[in-house]
Amino acid sequence: MNIGHKRWVIADGYIPPSSSGTSRELVSHDAICILNCDVEDAHVQVTLFFSDREPVGPYRFVVNALRTKHVRFNEFSDPEPVPHNTDYASVIESDVPIVVQHTRLDSRQPALALMTTMAFPA
Amino acid sequence: MNIGHKRWVIADGYIPPSSSGTSRELVSHDAICILNCDVEDAHVQVTLFFSDREPVGPYRFVVNALRTKHVRFNEFSDPEPVPHNTDYASVIESDVPIVVQHTRLDSRQPALALMTTMAFPA
Amino acid sequence: MNIGHKRWVIADGYIPPSSSGTSRELVSHDAICILNCDVEDAHVQVTLFFSDREPVGPYRFVVNALRTKHVRFNEFSDPEPVPHNTDYASVIESDVPIVVQHTRLDSRQPALALMTTMAFPA
Amino acid sequence: MNIGHKRWVIADGYIPPSSSGTSRELVSHDAICILNCDVEDAHVQVTLFFSDREPVGPYRFVVNALRTKHVRFNEFSDPEPVPHNTDYASVIESDVPIVVQHTRLDSRQPALALMTTMAFPA
Repeated sequence: MNIGHKRWVIADGYIPPSSSGTSRELVSHDAICILNCDVEDAHVQVTLFFSDREPVGPYRFVVNALRTKHVRFNEFSDPEPVPHNTDYASVIESDVPIVVQHTRLDSRQPALALMTTMAFPA
Repeated sequence: MNIGHKRWVIADGYIPPSSSGTSRELVSHDAICILNCDVEDAHVQVTLFFSDREPVGPYRFVVNALRTKHVRFNEFSDPEPVPHNTDYASVIESDVPIVVQHTRLDSRQPALALMTTMAFPA
Repeated sequence: MNIGHKRWVIADGYIPPSSSGTSRELVSHDAICILNCDVEDAHVQVTLFFSDREPVGPYRFVVNALRTKHVRFNEFSDPEPVPHNTDYASVIESDVPIVVQHTRLDSRQPALALMTTMAFPA
Repeated sequence: MNIGHKRWVIADGYIPPSSSGTSRELVSHDAICILNCDVEDAHVQVTLFFSDREPVGPYRFVVNALRTKHVRFNEFSDPEPVPHNTDYASVIESDVPIVVQHTRLDSRQPALALMTTMAFPA
């Protein structure tokens, strides 16, 4: 199946600066969930935009054919980690069509909050 | 009314592994809410995608004409249950147009969290 | 400005059956937020779909020209109130283009949860 | 990159009237997150719509080329502050294409809630 778009945008990027949970699953995070329904691997690159400095990237990774990958901005490291408690936005580009959903888990206060939206297909 | 699309995608699938509520309504769940405005029954099939293994499915069910059905991934059993605390994604296909909305209730911590988005019409 | 669509769909309708807040603003509710940017009043009618019975409606109201109206399903009464703790879906139709956003506030547990999505323009 | 639309709509505007957090990051807020991927600065103007009075605006600001700006309705002041605990909606217009995401943080009760959706491209 050839499903989705090759470029997606998320305008609200933010990694909460603290967590009330300690396990990986309950640590505050900002994530992109990607589905690749193609029979070819997807070579994905993410560019980050900030309020007060030049864009950073690309961050590169592969989403294998017929697989999903849920990626946390918290765990990006190359070319540089993503700062916490800082507004950013992202453009996600792929060489094959993918579907991208944006989800944040915020456990700063004692009871997590969630938000999600489909990214914008651009 | 002939409303919607025949194929929808959700990239962020996840069933929280625990719950602070015990009633069915407060158990953590990941769900697809489907509306069939057609005068024909919708024969729906869902395929699940994972990060590290082959897709699983189809899971099949019917959404009757002029009815809605809110289905929890937690309660899928055939061909196999959906693992908890595991990243997945899903493609929902129907023989008549439907509308699909994705909603998760997460009650791991003492105070539930909610998130929702329209699925992506593909 | 002539903005939006004349028909929108929400697949996940649900009114939580209890609340931890008592003021109107903190009572659990399921709502549609409508913007009418047109210079003509919008005559809106909502049809509700259920899992196990015939559709109910139309519920009728007006959103005046250049006004927004945030309407709670909880407060619908004619032709009949909307049952709580029951799955439903809705189709919103207007004679002029409008924009519809779906939002739920769930305060069953001691700390409210929120979810929102643009409705599906059909 | 020329990404997005020049007009976006948010139908559910609401600033919660209180907060359990005191730092700026935990104060209840209703926000628009904007990404400008263009090489030209985006001159943005926001018009607010209410349930019972004439529209207010425009509120004007610039999102620089290749930058993101996350703007809180709480902090709008010219032509007038946005009332709290009041239903509103907004139309966001720009002279170059932008992407707009709507996010609310509600910390009225002791444990914040989050919601987000892409705005509607009109």
